[in-house]
Amino acid sequence: MGFKIGLLGLGTVGTGTAEILLDPTGRNPLLQEIEIYRVGVRDTTKPRTVDLPSTAFTTDLEAIATDPDIDIVVELIGGLEPARSLILKAIHHKKHVVTANKAVISRYGDEIFTAANEAGVYVMLEAAVGGGIPVIQPLKQALVVNRIQSVMGIVNGTTNYILTRMQAEGADFAEVLADAQRLGYAEADPTADVDGLDAADKLAILASLAFGGRVKLEDVYCEGIRQVSAADITYADRLGFTIKLLAIAHRESPTDNPDLLQLRVHPTLVPKAHPLASVNGVYNAILVEGDPVGQVMFYGRGAGAGPTASAVVSDIMSIAAILKVEEIEAQQFNQQKVDVPHPLLSCSHQHYCAIAPMAELNTRFYARFLCNDEPGVIGHLGTSFGNHQVSLESVVQIGFQDGFAEIVVVTHESREGNFRQALEEIRTLKAVERIPSVVRVL
Amino acid sequence: MGFKIGLLGLGTVGTGTAEILLDPTGRNPLLQEIEIYRVGVRDTTKPRTVDLPSTAFTTDLEAIATDPDIDIVVELIGGLEPARSLILKAIHHKKHVVTANKAVISRYGDEIFTAANEAGVYVMLEAAVGGGIPVIQPLKQALVVNRIQSVMGIVNGTTNYILTRMQAEGADFAEVLADAQRLGYAEADPTADVDGLDAADKLAILASLAFGGRVKLEDVYCEGIRQVSAADITYADRLGFTIKLLAIAHRESPTDNPDLLQLRVHPTLVPKAHPLASVNGVYNAILVEGDPVGQVMFYGRGAGAGPTASAVVSDIMSIAAILKVEEIEAQQFNQQKVDVPHPLLSCSHQHYCAIAPMAELNTRFYARFLCNDEPGVIGHLGTSFGNHQVSLESVVQIGFQDGFAEIVVVTHESREGNFRQALEEIRTLKAVERIPSVVRVL
Repeated sequence: MGFKIGLLGLGTVGTGTAEILLDPTGRNPLLQEIEIYRVGVRDTTKPRTVDLPSTAFTTDLEAIATDPDIDIVVELIGGLEPARSLILKAIHHKKHVVTANKAVISRYGDEIFTAANEAGVYVMLEAAVGGGIPVIQPLKQALVVNRIQSVMGIVNGTTNYILTRMQAEGADFAEVLADAQRLGYAEADPTADVDGLDAADKLAILASLAFGGRVKLEDVYCEGIRQVSAADITYADRLGFTIKLLAIAHRESPTDNPDLLQLRVHPTLVPKAHPLASVNGVYNAILVEGDPVGQVMFYGRGAGAGPTASAVVSDIMSIAAILKVEEIEAQQFNQQKVDVPHPLLSCSHQHYCAIAPMAELNTRFYARFLCNDEPGVIGHLGTSFGNHQVSLESVVQIGFQDGFAEIVVVTHESREGNFRQALEEIRTLKAVERIPSVVRVL
Repeated sequence: MGFKIGLLGLGTVGTGTAEILLDPTGRNPLLQEIEIYRVGVRDTTKPRTVDLPSTAFTTDLEAIATDPDIDIVVELIGGLEPARSLILKAIHHKKHVVTANKAVISRYGDEIFTAANEAGVYVMLEAAVGGGIPVIQPLKQALVVNRIQSVMGIVNGTTNYILTRMQAEGADFAEVLADAQRLGYAEADPTADVDGLDAADKLAILASLAFGGRVKLEDVYCEGIRQVSAADITYADRLGFTIKLLAIAHRESPTDNPDLLQLRVHPTLVPKAHPLASVNGVYNAILVEGDPVGQVMFYGRGAGAGPTASAVVSDIMSIAAILKVEEIEAQQFNQQKVDVPHPLLSCSHQHYCAIAPMAELNTRFYARFLCNDEPGVIGHLGTSFGNHQVSLESVVQIGFQDGFAEIVVVTHESREGNFRQALEEIRTLKAVERIPSVVRVL
């Protein structure tokens, strides 16, 4: 017995994965049956911190994806290509796949899972969302008897780190980003993180699992945190909110039209008593709401070698456990093992989820206005919002900036389309100089 | 195909369980293969809200535990007997068991799992800890590759509700308890909850899973919340802490003696920035710390029909999924299905965990003293603590009560045995009138 792993990539997460597999003492005994058989790297001569025989290394990644002796291919090279092709090749060669690659799964999940179902293999991706936090497995198993109403979370550590520091220090975005880059918490090119693209990838994956349908990445509305200012964080704080970059997937109307989803990533004012409000720094958390379980939240480190490797190896273990059941079963019958799809671990949905346009979203809004300091301005704002059926929860003149009165508005729940029309009308008001920020409120 | 369930008990959780099984639309399709075959109740004539044929009901619970047509027995009657005997009987008749019964598992887990391993069946208990929160399954699967250093949590909703209201209202324990009883958040006899016994049951189960060894319930040190006063909550708040009833299991010394555990349930001063500090009301949360995953927290409703039923049915589904794999495998070979133990779902450990005595615990302490208002009192306290190698982090005279000076001390991390000896010495000081409270600090 024993299961052979082919590791594609030995970077940070690959090394963390190898470290767990090579040091099984004090961990689950099934680990001892898993062998790192081949490791695909760019340069076999590079010194490595993990103790693997030099014969295990190869630069021929395709040879690993097709090696008949390998049971599970673990893809940790990241990026779109050759990751996608290698995953597909491994699947066609009847290998189970474990990946941490959110970008490939969110873009090519349909192609990959269709191929996996045809080949009768598993594609596991716990590490693709939330680092070491078990959230994919609970969605596929422990929560699977629920009708999920929403999945929302803080799924990008870099932006949460930046927002947490902006909040703590009263600092502006550009300043904290520069420091985060210096400290290694943000990449030199921070686009994928700060513009919400990484969070969008993860949301597409979470939504697909939670709602049992495929999701197109381009259906995820996406807004990053570049526009969030120190001023907005301060005003939000005074109003009882913390600003977080949330990824939110929810049924637009659970009773009337349960199949219509809303998918969005944007900065959000989160009430301070909400469980997501106190998730700070590089931590991630995902809040699932289902019938009948209610609210359940999963919290932990969303990145890093150790946490991500924990998720990768747990996926390897899930597959190994099933293979072992099949193997013993086959031995009992004196037969060759047959791969049988585990009903909860394999992907069963094939239709695409229907997505509601953002204009149909019902939410509260926070908006900040710079106005001429003249009587009646608040009345004008109120009238314009009223003209478009947007009712206001609070209107506060916070102070003055550059000689303009600074007015902060929080609306009641309104249709986004109506709110946008009201803003268009307000922009034409002579008394209104600028609208520096508009943020949705949870 | 199809799997037959025998339900023992149709109370709150039993009814919630039946409601999920009878209404599979929008949930995982595997649910449709699960049939409620028999229901054991005390009174078959009682009107029921769930739509089950009257022929399914019986008062003969033993007949369900032994019925050859039943695949999975779901024990939801609670209490020790006849629950224990029925579970054992079902196991001996080769039935898989799902239970929400923490009391039976924490006391008779060794007997039950030994029997289950001999019979080759699963005993699943997600619902026994944390209601609907997936925590047992992550400990058995997603986190199983980690070396766990600690598991701690808020696992009793009643006490957390009481402490949250005491904090919010500045009210005393007895007052809030009476109101909680009136509102149905606390039982008429609140002993199991407020004295920490329910939390101790759950901690024994969590520790056993996290540390891969059996745990004796009597090894759990247990202190309830009756002694927590409004004054302590106020002072803790000023010092930056929230008081929570925590259940804590951790390795005493992860490097030197990893097999020695500390198991304890007691009120605890939790720093406000700690993830458990903001878990309020009837919510539960369990924080797991492992190598290499770091801190991971699971949060949700710890009780109630819906959440608990979600956990029960998810366990049923986990078993059904494995049975289905075995069934298809057997069909492929034209053989009778053989039960094969899934390496992660079955219980593999047989040794008992070694437990360190409380005197060996290293922790910080909060203590409140009523002293005569005379110069040098703080010096006397400091000297006595120093005599026993307890160093102090802060000593604050908070104010006066009944003519005595009220002094609050927070220590640095100290050995509990030393701290207790210091307290003995302090009790003999003439200047010290009383020591109304001693609470450990996280």
